[in-house]
Amino acid sequence: MKIGFIGTGVMGKSMAGHLLAAGHDLTVHTRTREKAADLLGQGAKWADSAAEAALDRDVAISMVGFPADVEEIHLGPQGTLSTSNPPSLLIDMTTSTPSLARSLATEAAARGISAIDAPVSGGDKGAREASLSIMVGGAWEAVDRAMPLFEIMGRTIVFMGDAGAGQHTKMANQILVSSSMVGACEAILYAEAAGLDPRKMVEAVSQGAAATWTIQNLAPRMLDGDFEPGFFVEHFVKDLGIALTESANLGLDLPGLAGAARLYRLLESRGLGRKGTQALLLLYREGGVAATENL
Amino acid sequence: MKIGFIGTGVMGKSMAGHLLAAGHDLTVHTRTREKAADLLGQGAKWADSAAEAALDRDVAISMVGFPADVEEIHLGPQGTLSTSNPPSLLIDMTTSTPSLARSLATEAAARGISAIDAPVSGGDKGAREASLSIMVGGAWEAVDRAMPLFEIMGRTIVFMGDAGAGQHTKMANQILVSSSMVGACEAILYAEAAGLDPRKMVEAVSQGAAATWTIQNLAPRMLDGDFEPGFFVEHFVKDLGIALTESANLGLDLPGLAGAARLYRLLESRGLGRKGTQALLLLYREGGVAATENL
Repeated sequence: MKIGFIGTGVMGKSMAGHLLAAGHDLTVHTRTREKAADLLGQGAKWADSAAEAALDRDVAISMVGFPADVEEIHLGPQGTLSTSNPPSLLIDMTTSTPSLARSLATEAAARGISAIDAPVSGGDKGAREASLSIMVGGAWEAVDRAMPLFEIMGRTIVFMGDAGAGQHTKMANQILVSSSMVGACEAILYAEAAGLDPRKMVEAVSQGAAATWTIQNLAPRMLDGDFEPGFFVEHFVKDLGIALTESANLGLDLPGLAGAARLYRLLESRGLGRKGTQALLLLYREGGVAATENL
Repeated sequence: MKIGFIGTGVMGKSMAGHLLAAGHDLTVHTRTREKAADLLGQGAKWADSAAEAALDRDVAISMVGFPADVEEIHLGPQGTLSTSNPPSLLIDMTTSTPSLARSLATEAAARGISAIDAPVSGGDKGAREASLSIMVGGAWEAVDRAMPLFEIMGRTIVFMGDAGAGQHTKMANQILVSSSMVGACEAILYAEAAGLDPRKMVEAVSQGAAATWTIQNLAPRMLDGDFEPGFFVEHFVKDLGIALTESANLGLDLPGLAGAARLYRLLESRGLGRKGTQALLLLYREGGVAATENL
């Protein structure tokens, strides 16, 4: 298939690489060209804009940082829909707002094009190992066309409903991740203060009712002092902000989410936005958590 | 081995059953005799008190509800240490306070007896399937003697250090469980409000970075409307109270734990103390969560 792939950061690079390796014809565009160097070396073609990446392609896939980027890439003056011969299928895999997913689908439909939302979970590891969970919203016929591509990039692919349903599912996912992250940091902090070996604690709790992906996969990174991304704090702050806005719109009171969002905003305000989400432990260790109680 | 087993509730019944099935000689005592009926039918002998259950036994194991019960069973006038010929090894598998575990070890040592703390994780399912995680504190020689028994009841057995270290590890475990429970409830509430099929949401998030034991094992019970214990709310309130007291003593500020403890206390105050911990969803569904913000 002829694919335009836009956004080759930590996640996108691995995902595009799997599509290339599976024999697809890729044109790539990303903000910083050097981040596409590996893919270009593997046979991908370079495009100077999202529009150029999308021209004469079957599908355009976006995997970028923020909803504003998604909007620009697809709906902007140099966007995928601006070309003379746009793809018949747009797939946004960024974690973005359900409302943008719906308006993108509506704008695309007005030109006879399908747009689906397909955010992912599993982090850099899931992207590298093609074991991502992919949560898909959109018209079934379009989703069905995209399935072979999803199966190359992920392992658990679930069709959730109309446009926006993928993003809503990702919000539920991030609510879970945020509470797991708080739990992991607090358990490690407690174990260290109580004089336990925190690695033994992780071993002891990782197979029972306390088991989480975070304690199994990120706690060891935390205990190694490895706070590199993985998944950026600044992107997680964005995700939790979307989840808070959406839950407020839905009339929900979610104190766990609200508390985690406060902690992550404070972490970002301390200049750690480009660290991995496991860097929350640093805020706990320096006692910065108390400061959130008055935010 | 000749074992006195005290406390045959939801968890203890299964654990004692595995010891019986493995060929050990069991005397059992529990507050409500009918809860021991199955075990008596399988060949266990009945004792009218903890002291009687412990008399002329090699080991006494306690698996009860609250620290006050543990204290009475081992240190009370009818306790295991009160008999003319007490066991040489006491194993408390209740989730209790680290300080009680230490004083029990000290009191026992004064009589030449070893006492170890070995709380478990894995719930009713883990107890039934002998797949519990067991977190062990105490003198290594005593722990080594207990290992064959632990291996009958559990799968992941970790020696954490001196008396009390097992209980401290269990507190770290409960901190993780409490945040997972909050996350699961908030994700389900969000998914339902957003119009998603919550079972599909659970399927979509259960294999990625959001995966938790709770979302995999308790969310399906929640969605089936099954709020039976499992693990009692009133016992979880006790555990979180211990964790809060211990973390305050250690000078820690753990807002996730504090928030979860508020929610569970409110749930108990509504008369749901004898439901399973997954009943937290009921508090969320009825909007009771907002009330905790002023507690």
